[in-house]
Amino acid sequence: MLSNPPQTRKDQILDTAERLFSERGYHATTIREIAHALELEGGSLYSHISGKHELLYQIVLRGSEQFLRAARESIAEGGGARAQLLRFMQRHLAIIAESRPRAIVHFHEWRHLGPQAQADIRARRDEYEAYLRQIIREGVARGEFAAGDERAIGLHVLSLLNWTYQWYQPGGTWNARDLAEQYFELLMRGLAPH
Amino acid sequence: MLSNPPQTRKDQILDTAERLFSERGYHATTIREIAHALELEGGSLYSHISGKHELLYQIVLRGSEQFLRAARESIAEGGGARAQLLRFMQRHLAIIAESRPRAIVHFHEWRHLGPQAQADIRARRDEYEAYLRQIIREGVARGEFAAGDERAIGLHVLSLLNWTYQWYQPGGTWNARDLAEQYFELLMRGLAPH
Repeated sequence: MLSNPPQTRKDQILDTAERLFSERGYHATTIREIAHALELEGGSLYSHISGKHELLYQIVLRGSEQFLRAARESIAEGGGARAQLLRFMQRHLAIIAESRPRAIVHFHEWRHLGPQAQADIRARRDEYEAYLRQIIREGVARGEFAAGDERAIGLHVLSLLNWTYQWYQPGGTWNARDLAEQYFELLMRGLAPH
Repeated sequence: MLSNPPQTRKDQILDTAERLFSERGYHATTIREIAHALELEGGSLYSHISGKHELLYQIVLRGSEQFLRAARESIAEGGGARAQLLRFMQRHLAIIAESRPRAIVHFHEWRHLGPQAQADIRARRDEYEAYLRQIIREGVARGEFAAGDERAIGLHVLSLLNWTYQWYQPGGTWNARDLAEQYFELLMRGLAPH
């Protein structure tokens, strides 16, 4: 197999910046610190990226694309809406569980993007939410889900999933897959007695 | 009515630090900037607080106490477990909706507290979660809720509630009270058709 050094190098830079942004916050992290952690001269970092803001944007963009791919796969694999929703939840939690620094930057530090970059990322988040609503809408149409406010149901599901970035530790009681099933079961059956 | 200047002054300091921490992050905000925003000399700020870390701790502590009071009231007002849970959810969302900077510092910037302060805050969060689990446990015992993993149900509810700090805007589609009811209804009835 041929390796692909430029891609690898870029990912290594994004991973390092991601970790530092997640630890101290975007504004408190300098390009010099990122270069130092990569054992690079500050100047040579600029041959890969145009600046700190660009780094933040590339990190958040990479995460958004990962979520979007996961959503498209969850739908493309077919089955009913229930099966699609469970896969959507499992994949979403797997991405968060895979890298805590990535999740922190994705869900928190992204606020420090400029207006244009934020609008770009928001559009991708809206697209992601639209995939989820599509699953819900089809589930209601097919009689797999009870009717309800599609936006509220989508927010309900995303809240469950996204909040894990705050508390999830690999190696705890639940792995990401079990947790997705726990949440899915309660979401489906509800807390009221049957 | 007599005013209470020392308390007011401290709250004013905490509110200002809270806003600045929420905007740029804890590490990127200096004591000098906080003093400047308060139109104080840096030195005179130290007659109120011992330093930046103490400010962060006092802000997060104030929030934790607010959540704990709300939980105790939700239980003390009695009624069944359903009524207590709905009140718990309404009060929790009302606190988040009241001040976005407070919620951002409470849920995100608190990570920058030192180990001892974090342990202290974690103990209060555990206490808060214990109130929620108490409501759930009593609801199951009284037949108001279906049996299930108490910890998973608690996390389910807290995820719904806490995630709002990321997206909630006053004046949007739902006020905090309506949103709590939306979440409560879906939580109770579930997404499966009846």
